[in-house]
Amino acid sequence: MGAAAIPDPLQSTIVRVSNFIGETTSVLRRTPGLLRALLIDLPDSWTDTTDVPTDGWRPHDVVGHLITGELTDWIERTQRILETGTAVPFDKFDRFAHAERDTDATLDELVEHFARLRAENLARLDELVSEQDLDRRGMHPTLGEVTLRELLATWAVHDLDHVSQIFAGMAGSHDAEVGPWKAYLGILLRREDPSAVAG
Amino acid sequence: MGAAAIPDPLQSTIVRVSNFIGETTSVLRRTPGLLRALLIDLPDSWTDTTDVPTDGWRPHDVVGHLITGELTDWIERTQRILETGTAVPFDKFDRFAHAERDTDATLDELVEHFARLRAENLARLDELVSEQDLDRRGMHPTLGEVTLRELLATWAVHDLDHVSQIFAGMAGSHDAEVGPWKAYLGILLRREDPSAVAG
Repeated sequence: MGAAAIPDPLQSTIVRVSNFIGETTSVLRRTPGLLRALLIDLPDSWTDTTDVPTDGWRPHDVVGHLITGELTDWIERTQRILETGTAVPFDKFDRFAHAERDTDATLDELVEHFARLRAENLARLDELVSEQDLDRRGMHPTLGEVTLRELLATWAVHDLDHVSQIFAGMAGSHDAEVGPWKAYLGILLRREDPSAVAG
Repeated sequence: MGAAAIPDPLQSTIVRVSNFIGETTSVLRRTPGLLRALLIDLPDSWTDTTDVPTDGWRPHDVVGHLITGELTDWIERTQRILETGTAVPFDKFDRFAHAERDTDATLDELVEHFARLRAENLARLDELVSEQDLDRRGMHPTLGEVTLRELLATWAVHDLDHVSQIFAGMAGSHDAEVGPWKAYLGILLRREDPSAVAG
């Protein structure tokens, strides 16, 4: 009988070490490279259209909005939770701060600016937060009590939400060029009718 | 008076050389790097969820479907247009061919397989097609007459459409983790109600 048949109490105890921060930053860390792969040197014919026809955002606006998040939201709110808990609500987030700030910047410049800020913020997050902090609570000005875990998950999903807007704007720029195939392309149909289903 | 004041007939003639193929392949060329930046080594906690709750696709399905397009659709149809015009309709595209074919492949393997096929197909496209061919016509089995220009635009927008599905699935994997912030995240709200508007 080999040694393997003798139960080893150490090996049979499964230790599940939570790695929520590592798994969340795995997404956050990807966004700059993703935006570079998608946007740097992309011809203007793909970048001059908004995600939806009315009050939509061009890729330039979306990257500007992501920059605002890095400047004023995610790490500021992380620090607020760690320093004051629920006693002092978060500052409100200005969803349109990019409009005036980024007028003169090219899309490529915005992508590189975002990449620098994201790298700095992930380094700060690494210094500030460990798994034991994730259930600490803060006060959102309209949503009420939230946890640090929810804030970090939202940071990552917010990236995914807004990068999807860039895809919708890029697709929309070629709405006419696809001709009759539009009937099969949900990304185009939903720009005009959110409940449309591709054929 | 400087030389600049003398109109130069050569300079005042604006020659617009069409570069539709270059601008379209600029997007097609980016998709492999984009999928690598997004998916390689991404923790399973982000990749095991479908884009919509019912009959949706996981990232594994989406990359498989993109592989099917490279194997049987875009270049095959390009050749059909060049060889037979509208005389022979395109073969139908099997939207579910990936389901059995890719069962044993990891997501990372699929991404690399797609990248190889895309590189080969862009090289073939470069040999096959020039700007003068773009108005040549083919016969789609259900949509009727289409142009080569429409086929190539659709190839690129089809990439954008399906990569967006990957984003929706990744976001959906953390639907619960964002807590009350879900009310602000359209990418999550639309998975359950396509016409939902984020607060």
